[in-house]
Amino acid sequence: MTRKELVELIRQKESYLCVGLDSDITKIPVHLRQEPDPVLAFNKAIIDATREFCVSYKINTAFYEALGARGWDTLEKTVRYIGQSHFTIADAKRGDIGNTSDQYARAFFETLPFDAVTVAPYMGEDSVKPFLQHAGKWAIVLGLTSNKGAADFELKRAGEGLLYEEVLKTVSRWGTPENTMFVIGATQADSFINIRRLTPDHFYLVPGVGAQGGSLKDISEKAMNADCGILVNVSRAIIFASSGTDFAEKARDAAHEYQAEMAAYVSR
Amino acid sequence: MTRKELVELIRQKESYLCVGLDSDITKIPVHLRQEPDPVLAFNKAIIDATREFCVSYKINTAFYEALGARGWDTLEKTVRYIGQSHFTIADAKRGDIGNTSDQYARAFFETLPFDAVTVAPYMGEDSVKPFLQHAGKWAIVLGLTSNKGAADFELKRAGEGLLYEEVLKTVSRWGTPENTMFVIGATQADSFINIRRLTPDHFYLVPGVGAQGGSLKDISEKAMNADCGILVNVSRAIIFASSGTDFAEKARDAAHEYQAEMAAYVSR
Repeated sequence: MTRKELVELIRQKESYLCVGLDSDITKIPVHLRQEPDPVLAFNKAIIDATREFCVSYKINTAFYEALGARGWDTLEKTVRYIGQSHFTIADAKRGDIGNTSDQYARAFFETLPFDAVTVAPYMGEDSVKPFLQHAGKWAIVLGLTSNKGAADFELKRAGEGLLYEEVLKTVSRWGTPENTMFVIGATQADSFINIRRLTPDHFYLVPGVGAQGGSLKDISEKAMNADCGILVNVSRAIIFASSGTDFAEKARDAAHEYQAEMAAYVSR
Repeated sequence: MTRKELVELIRQKESYLCVGLDSDITKIPVHLRQEPDPVLAFNKAIIDATREFCVSYKINTAFYEALGARGWDTLEKTVRYIGQSHFTIADAKRGDIGNTSDQYARAFFETLPFDAVTVAPYMGEDSVKPFLQHAGKWAIVLGLTSNKGAADFELKRAGEGLLYEEVLKTVSRWGTPENTMFVIGATQADSFINIRRLTPDHFYLVPGVGAQGGSLKDISEKAMNADCGILVNVSRAIIFASSGTDFAEKARDAAHEYQAEMAAYVSR
């Protein structure tokens, strides 16, 4: 999906909601555990219930890999079930030497039909570049993350500023705002003003709203640009809104609530 | 596998060779492509041919993920085929917020029987810790990598030294030399003296010998400690030593040659 298509989708749906399918098999409703593929049954119900209100789905590969080859099969069926109507993100945090990153790009962009993969920047340019060489596909590079560990390296002084600032400045030169986004955690709302100064045109994938405590209003005010410029991910607060037989209905309500709030911000 | 067991294995086999199963399906011998699972057939032949000369196998997950769920199945069959006699490494470069790294640790240490996973440090302590909480299992954290991109961030000034030095100092406090190793590229031989000063007791996983040009002699002289303290990975120069029907024999010869050279260094 191109940037133009993504921006149109956001305007049309008045939503920049990304639903995170962190579908932990130990947390899905008990009645689904009889299904031949419980996680797939769960994901399909969540997708059907939330499609209308979101523009993107993010699949957290860890929860699928924890189930082995079977989980990877569920991951594939899930992304194909979503289809082309939404911006699909493999939240995989990959990154390795060039010939290996190239294989990861194939895995997610060719073998699987994802639009984007999250990428760790530590190993530098040749670890990120292979993800930028597929038309209409995106690398979403870790900038400033939502977790406590962000303080260990990301917020350490490096070069003329902080490490994450160095990452934003450097990585934004390797690609363009048409194929590169950054992960910026919602728990870091006060940093968004500075971050926008460094990367005015890029989209940000913003996790950390909901279970992790970030405020949608706060980050929307501070992080948006003229093209909206943010995808806000919510995982647990939507997909595990209820653990009963009404889980899909409650997920729909939660997604609708986020979308309704977003509509007010995006149409300003 | 514990550190004590690993060190004993190295002394007994006079080898600190790790064979990297970067088994690119487009590069395996043509006659294997008729097999029901060509990569598995290739891996089994390589493992049978090289077992005697190495102490470890490293499976580069990217080359398996590029084949989708089928590839993940091959990965699982490969690590089970290796068994408990060797130190098995999932070269996966994972790392995410705590609850997600926890799933990755389950994926490689519980669902699969790997001894170790390579981990990217960018997201900090809670992204690494879950890999340190499984008895007898290891996190191998990226320190200074063998690729050109190492210059982009790893070698940038950060805190009192360079970023990779900050990573070595900080990460070594999260675990112990019994559950933490570092990836240090063989192309960085001159840095090993300083690196040993920072982390005298840790094992290093050293890629970059062979196709990437690092010298075994050089890194062995500069990086070893009293417990050997290094695992030197060779991938392409062993597994693709020949592309003909003699590929396994040539892989055996190449592995033997590395082992013979190592025997001279390790018994000093």
